[in-house]
Amino acid sequence: MSSHDRRFSQAAAAMQGSAIRKMGALGVRVPDLISFAPGFPAPEVFAWEEFREAARTLLDGSDGTVLQYGPTRGYLPLVEAVTKIVAGRGMTASADEVIITSGSQQALDLTARAFINPGDAVLVELPTYTGAITAFHNAQGHLVGVEQGPDGIDLDDLDRVLSRELREGRRIAFLYLVPNFQNPTGLLIGLDKRARLREWAARNDILIVEDDPYGALYFDDAATEAETRPIKADDADGRVVYLSSFSKTLAPGFRVAWIVAAGAIIEKLEVIKQSTDLCTGALDQRIVHRMWANGVLAARLPGLRSFYQHKRRVMEQALRRELGDLISWSEPKGGFFLWATLPPGMDTDALLPRAIEKKVVYVAGSAFFVDGRTGRLARLAFSAATPDRIEEGIRRLALAVREEMGATGSTQAARPARA
Amino acid sequence: MSSHDRRFSQAAAAMQGSAIRKMGALGVRVPDLISFAPGFPAPEVFAWEEFREAARTLLDGSDGTVLQYGPTRGYLPLVEAVTKIVAGRGMTASADEVIITSGSQQALDLTARAFINPGDAVLVELPTYTGAITAFHNAQGHLVGVEQGPDGIDLDDLDRVLSRELREGRRIAFLYLVPNFQNPTGLLIGLDKRARLREWAARNDILIVEDDPYGALYFDDAATEAETRPIKADDADGRVVYLSSFSKTLAPGFRVAWIVAAGAIIEKLEVIKQSTDLCTGALDQRIVHRMWANGVLAARLPGLRSFYQHKRRVMEQALRRELGDLISWSEPKGGFFLWATLPPGMDTDALLPRAIEKKVVYVAGSAFFVDGRTGRLARLAFSAATPDRIEEGIRRLALAVREEMGATGSTQAARPARA
Repeated sequence: MSSHDRRFSQAAAAMQGSAIRKMGALGVRVPDLISFAPGFPAPEVFAWEEFREAARTLLDGSDGTVLQYGPTRGYLPLVEAVTKIVAGRGMTASADEVIITSGSQQALDLTARAFINPGDAVLVELPTYTGAITAFHNAQGHLVGVEQGPDGIDLDDLDRVLSRELREGRRIAFLYLVPNFQNPTGLLIGLDKRARLREWAARNDILIVEDDPYGALYFDDAATEAETRPIKADDADGRVVYLSSFSKTLAPGFRVAWIVAAGAIIEKLEVIKQSTDLCTGALDQRIVHRMWANGVLAARLPGLRSFYQHKRRVMEQALRRELGDLISWSEPKGGFFLWATLPPGMDTDALLPRAIEKKVVYVAGSAFFVDGRTGRLARLAFSAATPDRIEEGIRRLALAVREEMGATGSTQAARPARA
Repeated sequence: MSSHDRRFSQAAAAMQGSAIRKMGALGVRVPDLISFAPGFPAPEVFAWEEFREAARTLLDGSDGTVLQYGPTRGYLPLVEAVTKIVAGRGMTASADEVIITSGSQQALDLTARAFINPGDAVLVELPTYTGAITAFHNAQGHLVGVEQGPDGIDLDDLDRVLSRELREGRRIAFLYLVPNFQNPTGLLIGLDKRARLREWAARNDILIVEDDPYGALYFDDAATEAETRPIKADDADGRVVYLSSFSKTLAPGFRVAWIVAAGAIIEKLEVIKQSTDLCTGALDQRIVHRMWANGVLAARLPGLRSFYQHKRRVMEQALRRELGDLISWSEPKGGFFLWATLPPGMDTDALLPRAIEKKVVYVAGSAFFVDGRTGRLARLAFSAATPDRIEEGIRRLALAVREEMGATGSTQAARPARA
């Protein structure tokens, strides 16, 4: 096997896979595993009937373009639909400021290739989304973490980090942010902080890449739509590249997402996409477009919000019941993830084999930190499992945690809880 | 606009789009244009009814994975189907030697990223497929052309080019070949030459990337299935990376293609694909898989071969009738393309505006040459237009050619023809 190693490019030799994807593969191999690992939406709330009806009409053979190669920029009616969708989020974008991508991961990859020179600093939150980490890393960026507080990225640390990177002579490719229900922490950046981030970016002439897959999935009991207003909505000078997706609101299997940015940036992204995959799936784009045109997408959102809010509540209740004295978290105000802090001394990487033995899996916090940090953090996705399975999964997790504490005698707090 | 230029990475700043894609966009803007430019399959022979039936069943909601994120390597039943499909082409491949890609363009992009360091030599045929040129160029490869004879790549020139590149100190990333009905020339590399290419690669320890989108579409009146046997079929030492696709035999709108290579190479390609688009469309892969499982794919091939063979014949007859004394070509033995040589002195780039004025378009030969060559060559795709439109398109082309010759007085041969 290793005879091929010398053939790989230096970039390829250094490329990394994603920890989450490995966790996802686990589910296939361990029977009855309850997975809180990948951020999968719940297929039971996909609009199966509407998808089926759209596919039936689209595939009637009357329009050959439904299965032909399409424009790299995207199916034009969908591009235009995106301008309307983002208008609903406070953004003004014309069709030439939009490109459809083959899922958000491609949006991250195109962005990485467009802006990152090998060795450039890419500023990211500590922790941040693993898919972004791999895309930026694989473009040979130098990933630099910035601490977060309860309302997201810490502006003082951002200044410190920027000064240090500039002092070390690095070009800054961009600042990557997930302001709405961040992956993995679930944090929401406050509106005031968003304004200050825009000012910071203008003052320092830095590009912001704003990733917003979860903004439409805010929870009524904890957040309002107004609080999810993208940074891009008030971007007067084309400094923000905005990414969003249909994967969480319709279905990820279609691989349809989008980027909104200045026209000159979209043109460059189009050239890169062209050599990357020519175009996004023609049928997929048309099904997604129909869901927008027939109002299904908009009509479903309130139901999706309460559906995922309910799952969050079930997970929180189970955590309190099973692990209340041993675990803490900030309540997620939207999105798919609960970011849990386990007892002092616990190592969530070390805990993982025991959790899998109990048939439950999560993503250890270390996967999300670009500074090599490990520790007692874990990302628990409440999106995919049913409420019953969430409860059972948290019971299993509690078993694993208590056993691990017994085995390692890791904390004082743990002992009474085990009694 | 240009204020963004300084933000782009050096690689992105140098990236190129594809001439063919620009031609494709033209069709949308010029009414009644007859396009011989892009290699589009003909939608009237897509299996609409079978696709519709497959989509209906798959989208019945009983299996959530149909629209979920999927494995990066591909939908496992499709991966296994590919091992059977390539077995029919003489290859032995296990499931861990296969990866599904989002179209062949992604296969080219992943291959480029896996093997090309900036500045590495990538050996390609003169002329070669533009999608490969852009993918390899955008990975910052140094593209080096090798001449072709009537049965494909010239082995003497290949030796000369290799020596020169090695002498200049370049690492050789790989040799890229399209042995079956090459794009753009339509040439078929003979079986004896394939064996010699394998020996050459072994002797010089060079990787071969074999791109085979058209192999299944040989024309009974000019070629046999045996003559399309891939180089990969006799690759004992894992030196060949084999690319193929469902785009030409089912439909390109699904964006489903594949790579067969040594397990260690597939593992690396999987890591790269993961950060590129996570996974290929879930529904698309399942529809394609059903077409294989229910025998529709195999059953359609003989009909597709005669369908495209007929179109080739219609185009050849029209060319003989309209431009017989002014144009020459080697008869395509399969695939989608006829590679035409126009009269001496003609420049097919210069002819293009006049052709478009007559509402016909082709791809000028210069798009396929990595050595900057221009001249009197043109690629005419006979795949997409109906027979009537092919005849009308060639009439328009003849008008343009004769007018151009009148305007430039370019050749002696031209004058009697104009009289």
